[in-house]
Amino acid sequence: MTAPIAKAFLSDNAAPVHPRVWEAMRAADEADAPYDNDALSRQLDERFSDLFGRPAWAMWTVTGTAANCLALATMVPPHGGVVCHREAHIEVDECGAPGFFTHGAKLILAEGEGAKLTPAAVERVVAPIRDDTHQIQPHALSLTQASEYGLVYTPPEIDALVAHARGRGFGIHVDGARFANAVAFLGCAPAQACGAVDALSFGCIKNGGMGADALVLFDWGAAELARYRRKRAGHLQSKGRFLAAQIIALLDGELWLANGRAANGAAAEIAAACGERLMHPVEANEIFVRLTPVERDALRAQGFGFYDWGDDAARFVTAWNTREEDARALAAAIAGL
Amino acid sequence: MTAPIAKAFLSDNAAPVHPRVWEAMRAADEADAPYDNDALSRQLDERFSDLFGRPAWAMWTVTGTAANCLALATMVPPHGGVVCHREAHIEVDECGAPGFFTHGAKLILAEGEGAKLTPAAVERVVAPIRDDTHQIQPHALSLTQASEYGLVYTPPEIDALVAHARGRGFGIHVDGARFANAVAFLGCAPAQACGAVDALSFGCIKNGGMGADALVLFDWGAAELARYRRKRAGHLQSKGRFLAAQIIALLDGELWLANGRAANGAAAEIAAACGERLMHPVEANEIFVRLTPVERDALRAQGFGFYDWGDDAARFVTAWNTREEDARALAAAIAGL
Amino acid sequence: MTAPIAKAFLSDNAAPVHPRVWEAMRAADEADAPYDNDALSRQLDERFSDLFGRPAWAMWTVTGTAANCLALATMVPPHGGVVCHREAHIEVDECGAPGFFTHGAKLILAEGEGAKLTPAAVERVVAPIRDDTHQIQPHALSLTQASEYGLVYTPPEIDALVAHARGRGFGIHVDGARFANAVAFLGCAPAQACGAVDALSFGCIKNGGMGADALVLFDWGAAELARYRRKRAGHLQSKGRFLAAQIIALLDGELWLANGRAANGAAAEIAAACGERLMHPVEANEIFVRLTPVERDALRAQGFGFYDWGDDAARFVTAWNTREEDARALAAAIAGL
Amino acid sequence: MTAPIAKAFLSDNAAPVHPRVWEAMRAADEADAPYDNDALSRQLDERFSDLFGRPAWAMWTVTGTAANCLALATMVPPHGGVVCHREAHIEVDECGAPGFFTHGAKLILAEGEGAKLTPAAVERVVAPIRDDTHQIQPHALSLTQASEYGLVYTPPEIDALVAHARGRGFGIHVDGARFANAVAFLGCAPAQACGAVDALSFGCIKNGGMGADALVLFDWGAAELARYRRKRAGHLQSKGRFLAAQIIALLDGELWLANGRAANGAAAEIAAACGERLMHPVEANEIFVRLTPVERDALRAQGFGFYDWGDDAARFVTAWNTREEDARALAAAIAGL
Repeated sequence: MTAPIAKAFLSDNAAPVHPRVWEAMRAADEADAPYDNDALSRQLDERFSDLFGRPAWAMWTVTGTAANCLALATMVPPHGGVVCHREAHIEVDECGAPGFFTHGAKLILAEGEGAKLTPAAVERVVAPIRDDTHQIQPHALSLTQASEYGLVYTPPEIDALVAHARGRGFGIHVDGARFANAVAFLGCAPAQACGAVDALSFGCIKNGGMGADALVLFDWGAAELARYRRKRAGHLQSKGRFLAAQIIALLDGELWLANGRAANGAAAEIAAACGERLMHPVEANEIFVRLTPVERDALRAQGFGFYDWGDDAARFVTAWNTREEDARALAAAIAGL
Repeated sequence: MTAPIAKAFLSDNAAPVHPRVWEAMRAADEADAPYDNDALSRQLDERFSDLFGRPAWAMWTVTGTAANCLALATMVPPHGGVVCHREAHIEVDECGAPGFFTHGAKLILAEGEGAKLTPAAVERVVAPIRDDTHQIQPHALSLTQASEYGLVYTPPEIDALVAHARGRGFGIHVDGARFANAVAFLGCAPAQACGAVDALSFGCIKNGGMGADALVLFDWGAAELARYRRKRAGHLQSKGRFLAAQIIALLDGELWLANGRAANGAAAEIAAACGERLMHPVEANEIFVRLTPVERDALRAQGFGFYDWGDDAARFVTAWNTREEDARALAAAIAGL
Repeated sequence: MTAPIAKAFLSDNAAPVHPRVWEAMRAADEADAPYDNDALSRQLDERFSDLFGRPAWAMWTVTGTAANCLALATMVPPHGGVVCHREAHIEVDECGAPGFFTHGAKLILAEGEGAKLTPAAVERVVAPIRDDTHQIQPHALSLTQASEYGLVYTPPEIDALVAHARGRGFGIHVDGARFANAVAFLGCAPAQACGAVDALSFGCIKNGGMGADALVLFDWGAAELARYRRKRAGHLQSKGRFLAAQIIALLDGELWLANGRAANGAAAEIAAACGERLMHPVEANEIFVRLTPVERDALRAQGFGFYDWGDDAARFVTAWNTREEDARALAAAIAGL
Repeated sequence: MTAPIAKAFLSDNAAPVHPRVWEAMRAADEADAPYDNDALSRQLDERFSDLFGRPAWAMWTVTGTAANCLALATMVPPHGGVVCHREAHIEVDECGAPGFFTHGAKLILAEGEGAKLTPAAVERVVAPIRDDTHQIQPHALSLTQASEYGLVYTPPEIDALVAHARGRGFGIHVDGARFANAVAFLGCAPAQACGAVDALSFGCIKNGGMGADALVLFDWGAAELARYRRKRAGHLQSKGRFLAAQIIALLDGELWLANGRAANGAAAEIAAACGERLMHPVEANEIFVRLTPVERDALRAQGFGFYDWGDDAARFVTAWNTREEDARALAAAIAGL
């Protein structure tokens, strides 16, 4: 992670905070009840119930990792397993946080193009597991919408995964660190974009927030469990109103969707210039591009910042604040290589 | 925790954010490297080394609970124990977070007036433990400066505890959720106020911050461990620059001390009016006052907000922003009962 | 634990194995299905269902600690608590095993004469717990029958505890390391001696067995959980038939009760000689006796083995194999002091 | 695991107990100090130091899983990883016990023919891990001698793995559930067969024992840790003398080696009849044979017991007590298919 720091296309995870989020935070400065007893935090259940059209219990978390792992801990016992993609964030980039929050549950790794799962891919890793106490039994499925490679599950794809997982008796979690980008791409209702799952990590931090994501649970008992576990994990900030304010600011007037659309639009502009270089279709705000070291040096010499992706590729990420001119400039630079 | 919400004296943990902290956060808006690779987070080691006059490794945490428990996890194995006061925050108010972060270590509860420990009190619970594998062996000491009842350890008191704990081979942690109030009271160097300990939770949130405390470790190896464990616990925010900014704003120009003094001053004003009603000497910013239910009703009728403390007492807490006129008004109201 | 090793009255936990247990083990030598798929292990559910007159699921464990902790782990979440006596074996002598198996749950310590609990004693520690996420919520009760001081709960005492715990929504566990001694004392049905609890650790090792206790669960779902957790804790011996054989040998012809009666009888003989020296009534097979260091030396000089119990007392334990002549000799020696 | 139960070749893990082990257990019946304070348990350090020609600390465990996981827990922090083969017993057949004992450490799965690892295979999975807090860092290597497919590492192979792992700073563990078979095959000193590793699970249960394996640690500090963790995991049997007796009986007069040789010899006899059907060279006491369902039915009809291995193969395991005539009969039956 010693990549060069530069403006622009490194990641959406360090982008500035949206002005309307700043405003909402300032407006919350006056002291209110501590933890999540304040007026803003107490709105979250209703806001997300409205958004998804079914009863939801929602709580702020300080990271997406926390949201993911609190969700999983409501679904899987310490001796169980969670099926996820081999390149899922929970497997690759959370330093074993799922193991910490679940007290040792195992991630069972499935394959799939573009970090997307299918019922067949899930079945392939689940079917061989013997039904005895010697082997870890799968209890949950976790998928990422949009995926770690910027691909988006369509509602029918999600529904098929949900149906399969339900048939297996699994709990189902969606890591929606970039859920806004997925919904913006699909143009459907949020409920359709995540399906009839049990838990959704609703990303805000990468989408104009500062330090609050939302964990949305569609089951009261799970929410009760998660509230205790959030406290026990040292995540219950006493000035929770500032976290709730961020989330509500993004929900208000569908700012979250506008931000997702903006990022997607910039990504599409860049993708259009990449042609055969694209490693994956660009559906959300990540662009994986085949680029030689020499080509990457050339782009960096022009001031573009991005991460290498292995030896022969790079990852570009747009965000809510990516300027059209910067996207165009990058597109032109790539086209001109 | 269904106490009435009101202005003023409920707790310092939900107070507004200091204007200079707001400024520093706004100044950090521009994207920088994610997590704790940004320019501000990378200053923390040096800033705290300077403050304490010895090599320190410092990291932001999102709560004091996280700081406390990450510290303890560097000192005690899962099969060990941590000596603390029976009314320590880690025992009473963290929903078992020490057990989560240490993977099951036990809190060994000692007694002491005003939630303060002494070597004798520690020895009393440690001495009877048999040195065999059937009993949990103590590995660490955790004390709170200022204590949960607003009392402050003097440097000689701390030194005596440290000497005793070292003799026992313990790691030593200070929960400094209100460390600023303690140092402000003592008027000594920060290093003297915490002694030659291994770890300090340096509280910012109750002292003008928003959502960042600092974990200060005086051992490089422990810091390495804590960094991995912080990530694994889902605490590594990607826009860490906003947390570092809060801490640095408080360190700059000794704002942290000024805030502590302000809160202490307001508390002293109120305490002076309480006379025999005081349950503990008021050294920091908490005032525990004997008040009948009728008296409490009378105060609340005048608009004062505070928590009941059992059936016959109340707790008042001042903060960096407590206005002199409000402190005086409360003092007068109590005197007039 | 560096007490002198001598014959006789040190503990029942290292006594020889009963000849009928040896026979049963030898009879099981022929290879059978591994783990608990053998013919003997598969009898346990039925045997204990018969013994307690209600559906039971039973499994062997290699220690009483394992039985206790597997039981607790079916009742309490990692962020919860278990009420037990301050001197309960799970608190004092299991090196934090309950914390390991429950992933950090807390033992909430209640008081009571002779290590026995009462509803009032339980309520005393439970009532002050605030119903919020900051405090560990109690989820279970664990009591020891016979108690750590050799006292026996009567059926009405147990029933009162069960009724209170049910009212609180607790799961209920009985540590029956010396359950045989309790039932032998009470002369009632086993079901009456443990009440309508959820789980019983049925002790065999101290009662003529070698290395197998039984965990008896009165709930199928809990049993399923416990089976996975037993495997995961490395307790699932592949030659499980030898453990089942021990348990069944003790159940056959009520050998377990005969052994309990024998130990109790020897204890009663000794107790009768102790008069005012007795610290607790002797109801099972432990005798706590006030003895000065000089007196203890005198007894040891006569060849008696026992543990000191603090500075001014000793603990004598009889077992299934305590010879009448040895009990009589000890009684005479104490009387003659 | 609902395979048919039959005599003979199902597994060595349920074989009868060797007569000399029985004798030793009977000889240990007389009460001695409890736990591992008895005369036999106290011999283990010396016995294994002698066996391996360097200082060793050894303790009995009730299963191989317990030995494996206690060893790993001394080497890897909860946020770390252990490299092992994808088909290692710790990955496939211990229901997540490594995750339980290490508090969540991850198994990092390497590939290799016949479940054997090489430095290159280890490096392949270790090299891509980024050295930052977002990814689990490897801390240990675990290999199985003989492997899960009955292959044996030669001393040079072990030495190469040890050298590579040391260069990476790893702790090194050998799962020796069938270590006797490996040493018998190699005909070398035990020390050469396991190399300069940190910990060895020395299998006894599959080799004529009843319910005791030995965990051998070549570091005093690790042994201290493991002793507390063994107790805390509920594994410290009070009549530990019976476990020590089993281990010592196998060490006496090199019975363990004689048993290993007997099992290997029977396996070799069978292997010789399998020709092209063999899936792996037969070096220890497991024989993996390509057999159609019809062929397997034919063998079972002749009374042979074994497990299916996928759809088109079977696993046969010999043990210390496999009779020459039975091995010959099976060889003839396979040859006659």
